[in-house]
Amino acid sequence: MSRNECRGQIVCLGLGPGDPELMSVKADRILRNARHVAFFRKRGHPGKARQLVTGMLHEQVTEYPMEYPITTEIPASDPRYVAQLSEFYRGWQARLTELAREKEVIVLCEGDPFFYGSFMHLYIRLRDAGEVPVQVLPGIPGMVGCWHATGIPVTWGDDAMSVLPATLPDLQLRQHMECSDALVIMKVGRHLGRIRSLLAERGTLDRAWLVINGTMEDQQVMPLRDAPERCPYFAIVIVHGQGRRPADDMPVDAR
Amino acid sequence: MSRNECRGQIVCLGLGPGDPELMSVKADRILRNARHVAFFRKRGHPGKARQLVTGMLHEQVTEYPMEYPITTEIPASDPRYVAQLSEFYRGWQARLTELAREKEVIVLCEGDPFFYGSFMHLYIRLRDAGEVPVQVLPGIPGMVGCWHATGIPVTWGDDAMSVLPATLPDLQLRQHMECSDALVIMKVGRHLGRIRSLLAERGTLDRAWLVINGTMEDQQVMPLRDAPERCPYFAIVIVHGQGRRPADDMPVDAR
Ligand SMILES: C[S@@+](CC[C@H](N)C(=O)[O-])C[C@H]1O[C@@H](n2cnc3c(N)ncnc32)[C@H](O)[C@@H]1O
Ligand SMILES: C[S@@+](CC[C@H](N)C(=O)[O-])C[C@H]1O[C@@H](n2cnc3c(N)ncnc32)[C@H](O)[C@@H]1O
Repeated sequence: MSRNECRGQIVCLGLGPGDPELMSVKADRILRNARHVAFFRKRGHPGKARQLVTGMLHEQVTEYPMEYPITTEIPASDPRYVAQLSEFYRGWQARLTELAREKEVIVLCEGDPFFYGSFMHLYIRLRDAGEVPVQVLPGIPGMVGCWHATGIPVTWGDDAMSVLPATLPDLQLRQHMECSDALVIMKVGRHLGRIRSLLAERGTLDRAWLVINGTMEDQQVMPLRDAPERCPYFAIVIVHGQGRRPADDMPVDAR
Repeated sequence: MSRNECRGQIVCLGLGPGDPELMSVKADRILRNARHVAFFRKRGHPGKARQLVTGMLHEQVTEYPMEYPITTEIPASDPRYVAQLSEFYRGWQARLTELAREKEVIVLCEGDPFFYGSFMHLYIRLRDAGEVPVQVLPGIPGMVGCWHATGIPVTWGDDAMSVLPATLPDLQLRQHMECSDALVIMKVGRHLGRIRSLLAERGTLDRAWLVINGTMEDQQVMPLRDAPERCPYFAIVIVHGQGRRPADDMPVDAR
């Protein structure tokens, strides 16, 4: 069957940072009507995206948990890691394509799917194969929910902002800390101690915040210097921009 | 009247990138019920935020256009610029505070209010004065709508991303172009030519995109090398990250 004869489609929804009220009007409507819902999860875990939609799914929904074969057990540099993941994505590409010939399949993704999202790995395969239509809807990225959780604006006027995975080497993190006014550090998890040292070295530790599970029911917000030694995977470090601005007030942006 | 006796409040809504369907469920509901709606605009213009909610306001709404006294007529370094703007913000702080003692006042803001938004200048004054409650709701930033308009994921795996106002000096723009994988350049407007030269110098012009009025009815998306000489204020340049990843496939993020 060619794409023209296909009656279904795949739609990936950006769910936003966590609070269901922050989902877009469009994503909310599609989600509540969905009959086929897929989401990634780690073996033995409920899956963050699935947790965020608790109580919102239709009673006749069929769920498709896409379980990662591995996560941290094998280092990402190991060829077996790459091989297993390729296999995993190819398998789900085939499965979702079959389903989407007749049906609408909804894929759940935390935050915005195009911003460090796992679905992108399936998206490019599905798009390049061109067998079924694929759509992706934007969502509020987790970092936006996190800077709102601090109650402080993140960028003003001419501020430059860097978004950095904490998994980057020190050298690169330092380069960005030097040339940026605002910082967002993602995937903090076990890198918390290292991030703290780098910010202290740069003299910005006292302005840094840690947000865990931003906008979710169990949200935690604290100055980074008061943070415990360890933090979960769903955590972001934020250093707010101070605003490159003249005198006592800030200029309106030129239009 | 103290804050405790105050029955109203000020709520600033992040409207998202433009498409009303991308507004959050919460912002959409508050907007449709609002009776007092304020928004910034340049003299003689309808105001972008106000335009985005066309047809969505209650029939009994009262509108409060907050007209900038100046924009580009006086350079931002001129003390008169700062003085006039301070006066403008102080005036509206007083006016909104009066209104919010009894009523709920909604302020409209494009994208996310805490991300280069004009309302932040009022927000910090209102918050510091503490006379009436102030809330700010997140929205999908314009850049997110713009990278979706290109249909290409913006960051993968360990990519670092810089968000840069085009108004920054060349030196700083160059620094970020050197150490980042993905770039978002905001406030492009009259800086388009300069941005193009800097990206060409860096060898990334061929991967750069220009998005004008992303997700709005008059959206335009094009490779930057095909762009005209000039572009409007609501335009963003995007260079997508390529993904710092091993071999032929991308690793799942460690959890
Ligand atoms: C694989 S990335 C996915 C990002 C997601 N697509 C987004 O737009 O936010 C996972 C990382 O996002 C960050 N994150 C996303 N949402 C978050 C939230 N609500 N609170 C804290 N961190 C969050 C964490 O740093 C986490 O390690
Ligand atoms: C003063 S900033 C406000 C940013 C806004 N608060 C946000 O979250 O996107 C204005 C700049 O945002 C960018 N922008 C915002 N929304 C956009 C859209 N839908 N399409 C293109 N550019 C947009 C443009 O670069 C514009 O110059």
